[in-house]
Amino acid sequence: MRFRARCEYDGTDFAGFQLQPNARTVQGELEAALARLNRGERVVVDGAGRTDAGVHAAGQVIAFTYAGSVAAERLQRAVNALLPRDVAIRDLRRATDGFHPRYAARYREYRYTVWNGPRSPLLERTALGVRAPLDVAAMARAGSVFLGRHDFSSFGAVAEDRSPVRTVQAVRVRGAGGLVTIDVRANAFLRGQVRRMVAVLLEVGHGKMDEAELEAALAAGEPALNGAAAPAKGLCLRRVALGRRPVDDKEDEE
Amino acid sequence: MRFRARCEYDGTDFAGFQLQPNARTVQGELEAALARLNRGERVVVDGAGRTDAGVHAAGQVIAFTYAGSVAAERLQRAVNALLPRDVAIRDLRRATDGFHPRYAARYREYRYTVWNGPRSPLLERTALGVRAPLDVAAMARAGSVFLGRHDFSSFGAVAEDRSPVRTVQAVRVRGAGGLVTIDVRANAFLRGQVRRMVAVLLEVGHGKMDEAELEAALAAGEPALNGAAAPAKGLCLRRVALGRRPVDDKEDEE
Repeated sequence: MRFRARCEYDGTDFAGFQLQPNARTVQGELEAALARLNRGERVVVDGAGRTDAGVHAAGQVIAFTYAGSVAAERLQRAVNALLPRDVAIRDLRRATDGFHPRYAARYREYRYTVWNGPRSPLLERTALGVRAPLDVAAMARAGSVFLGRHDFSSFGAVAEDRSPVRTVQAVRVRGAGGLVTIDVRANAFLRGQVRRMVAVLLEVGHGKMDEAELEAALAAGEPALNGAAAPAKGLCLRRVALGRRPVDDKEDEE
Repeated sequence: MRFRARCEYDGTDFAGFQLQPNARTVQGELEAALARLNRGERVVVDGAGRTDAGVHAAGQVIAFTYAGSVAAERLQRAVNALLPRDVAIRDLRRATDGFHPRYAARYREYRYTVWNGPRSPLLERTALGVRAPLDVAAMARAGSVFLGRHDFSSFGAVAEDRSPVRTVQAVRVRGAGGLVTIDVRANAFLRGQVRRMVAVLLEVGHGKMDEAELEAALAAGEPALNGAAAPAKGLCLRRVALGRRPVDDKEDEE
């Protein structure tokens, strides 16, 4: 039987979502828990997005095929009881055969959190601390440059045989009491794309780059800011919306 | 010269604020940083509240006497550069000679955070997870029983020669999207008082105790729920208001 679930994790102590030898990964922990319930046999776990080391998720989507006959609610409880404290699943339910979260994802929403104030230990794990004041209004204006369908080669890595074109559906930069959040939604993202977009928006916030330069960087097709990316700890995959999506949008994502 | 500052810490990896031999404490880290700036000589750090192991603070107040002639801003930068990631100071400024944050505190505000939903790794360090649904309205009503001046012997530990009387100025229980916050403000608190108050309010939220029983527990003068306390990780000292307070309120606090 095919199952899908939402998955939340604190990415701090993970080498990313995707399985790697000799590294602690989210996929590795999920598969280890499921294998224990499956008499030691491996259960392959698929995810909607391959988040990098240190990146968090509140709404990652995962799927796996589990042979045993078990109610979803009971299986979820059993998996969560075996998972470590920094990863959990919820909303586990039956999925159609062949369901793959990566191809079923209609769009993804990431949030990048910046704490623009004095050093804050309570935000240390989930926000980037920036001391110098940011011009949030300028960042919000510049963010709209990313909207729409673009070749994002300047903002992400892509395999040679894949398209670097992605469609950014929404960019929202907000500031409240020193907390600056950058929400980005796209059909899919290139590897590292959100963190590179944020690195450029922070330059704008510091008055070191303007909208015209951002537009030029996007058009250039060469790594913007020499490929500088904002640190992983401020990034969180908040939501993966499921549903059919156009065939030409089947691309890799962050 | 006497200085005071606000102090924020993630209490997870601390054995509490107060200095202890062979344990990692907030006071210990602050004094270690200051000693390094003071040619190895100890600088005693006083705090407004002795938070327990695992309890966080966003607005603890500290004070110390530092002999060197140095601008507050520069001293703050130097201290923060030497402190580990889970503790920081801000708003460092000159204080009057003899200023002690414990006696200068007019009132303290603590927040206890409960996540009433499925297991959430991103809230693991700063909120208590409660799966069964809580009746937040009942908790809010019951919270008002604590208001005013009471003998809080049923809700905290007190040294024999000290008064168990404290004045609770505000109790506010709010729920929003599964996040339940319990804000309590008092002139001072007995040791463990907030966490024991929260333990009882959670019983009310689960329908296992009502307001009348809470009133009886408060009047009894014996440990309510046999002294059960909510876990430290949900508790945060949010604010210490400075200023003169009545002489008869000079009491110990949590």
